[in-house]
Amino acid sequence: MNEFELIKKYFCDWDIGSAGGIHGDGTAAPQVSLGIGDDCALLNIPEGKHLAVSTDTFSEGTHFFKGTSPEAIGYKALAVNLSDLAAMGAEPLGFTLALSLPDDNPAFLAGFSQGMRSLASKWRIPLVGGDTVRGALSVTITVLGAVADSEAFRRDRAETGDRIFVSGPLGGAAYGVWARYRNISETPETRALFSRLDYPSPRLDLLPLLRLLGCCSALDISDGLLGDLSHILKASRKRAVINRKSIPCPEFPKGVPSEEQLKMILAGGDDYELLFTLSPENAERYKEMKRENPDLPVFYEIGSIHDCSSDFPEISFADSPDIPADIAGFTHF
Amino acid sequence: MNEFELIKKYFCDWDIGSAGGIHGDGTAAPQVSLGIGDDCALLNIPEGKHLAVSTDTFSEGTHFFKGTSPEAIGYKALAVNLSDLAAMGAEPLGFTLALSLPDDNPAFLAGFSQGMRSLASKWRIPLVGGDTVRGALSVTITVLGAVADSEAFRRDRAETGDRIFVSGPLGGAAYGVWARYRNISETPETRALFSRLDYPSPRLDLLPLLRLLGCCSALDISDGLLGDLSHILKASRKRAVINRKSIPCPEFPKGVPSEEQLKMILAGGDDYELLFTLSPENAERYKEMKRENPDLPVFYEIGSIHDCSSDFPEISFADSPDIPADIAGFTHF
Repeated sequence: MNEFELIKKYFCDWDIGSAGGIHGDGTAAPQVSLGIGDDCALLNIPEGKHLAVSTDTFSEGTHFFKGTSPEAIGYKALAVNLSDLAAMGAEPLGFTLALSLPDDNPAFLAGFSQGMRSLASKWRIPLVGGDTVRGALSVTITVLGAVADSEAFRRDRAETGDRIFVSGPLGGAAYGVWARYRNISETPETRALFSRLDYPSPRLDLLPLLRLLGCCSALDISDGLLGDLSHILKASRKRAVINRKSIPCPEFPKGVPSEEQLKMILAGGDDYELLFTLSPENAERYKEMKRENPDLPVFYEIGSIHDCSSDFPEISFADSPDIPADIAGFTHF
Repeated sequence: MNEFELIKKYFCDWDIGSAGGIHGDGTAAPQVSLGIGDDCALLNIPEGKHLAVSTDTFSEGTHFFKGTSPEAIGYKALAVNLSDLAAMGAEPLGFTLALSLPDDNPAFLAGFSQGMRSLASKWRIPLVGGDTVRGALSVTITVLGAVADSEAFRRDRAETGDRIFVSGPLGGAAYGVWARYRNISETPETRALFSRLDYPSPRLDLLPLLRLLGCCSALDISDGLLGDLSHILKASRKRAVINRKSIPCPEFPKGVPSEEQLKMILAGGDDYELLFTLSPENAERYKEMKRENPDLPVFYEIGSIHDCSSDFPEISFADSPDIPADIAGFTHF
């Protein structure tokens, strides 16, 4: 099968070429003026908004275990890119896919495209361009989104006094990595933890609430809480005080040493929850809103932002002084 | 060297992170609101313009010969993507780079980034995002540009009566491929032909003149003249009559069989010249302008667009009826 045939068979019912973009569910994508099939796709960017763009490569051995299901590979390659849009507060517009494949294995391609398509449909983000080559399995996606400058969640916008939040439990995906390295199989009890690794949810669902709360600083936790928090602190020139016991985590199965659990929580990446800051007033406002409307998403307050000072480490723990001040060991889990 | 260090060392002086984008020559890129270093880059799209986006992967063995210089790999990976913007009539805004590397060979990285940077500087297109992974050598670039809808060069906009033009000689790069497969070395005589293969020029220089001439239909010749022309014909539902002797070609060195030369001209890709159509009035206008101003770029008229009819093949040769009507053999050179 040549490149044109392959794209047509597995990816083209996502799009009807020059007549415009089509979502995975068959409905039209009004932001696509010209879809796949010309030298470039043409997209409409809403007036007054910036284009947000991010690229991530996802390759066998480095980003997923050999033997991961094709569905999970297709799903997660798009999920981690959509997570970057969520972390910037940007609404998704479209994405391109560069796929390196060792062969034309139809079972792989069917599963891969199905996994990717399910997530593309959910967030109504059309595939607008792509390329396929022969080579080791590798997926590069570029996501395109739109965000107003005043609503962008930038790493350099954390302010002294801000409260630090995370959007969900941390460490589940890291348990999945830990278990797979040890050939520990999935059980009904640990299914949810493996699922955090294979099918993370890009938290685009939180954007309306975060915008309402005036969030200006966020990122997605892909490399681990401490390492990622340090990116915000460096860009904003601040330090942070964290309450270790406030960090939400899943229930780990028996047999995981407590030191390993701590590493999973503080330094395990791949959960793709958002880490963000809110002003004290907006943090309070969130709590009031949540009391009145218990169905709102749960945000976990884990600490606060402070002026930078050479007398304090970049990140310290208010309730756990025994955690080593040098957290470098946690940043490369 | 980890990913952050690698990007910083070889690519970050292209950009100064959150303070905005910077060109390879050190000047500011006003279209970049937020450069490399956050979850996404933020770009300004000029009001009233579409975003043009295209992705191409460039990998060892498939897209370049083992042993190609790092400079040529870095240069050409960006060149073929910029060529897609030129073929759509779009002004470049920025690009992302996903780089798969077997190791951190400093000589390779220095040459590669230098080759890419030289072209990025020439066209003032900033690097706005990227990712690096371990793996076989492969380069995926996504280019972003801007074009007004009325000025987009679309494959589906060729009209009956239009004259067909190409922007330069065809077959030089194909000679380079042919010679390398036969281990025929470069000589002073053939240097220009090999250079067409290794350092093709994206024809962004032609955009002002093509817009002035009301060009609406174009593409870049990456797969070969006949195969690429057929893309325009299919999208526009037309047929073409070509004058074989009007197709410009380089002077091939002695020893290349004439049948091979014909294949190089008609089916050799990789020259990245533009193929485009102009209305008869605008074709005439170009000739008048060129008479008055001999410094204008040379456009080569090679044929004309006709109504589709089942009585005629999609592409026929007015002056060379001996060229087989079935040109399929030429489309996969």
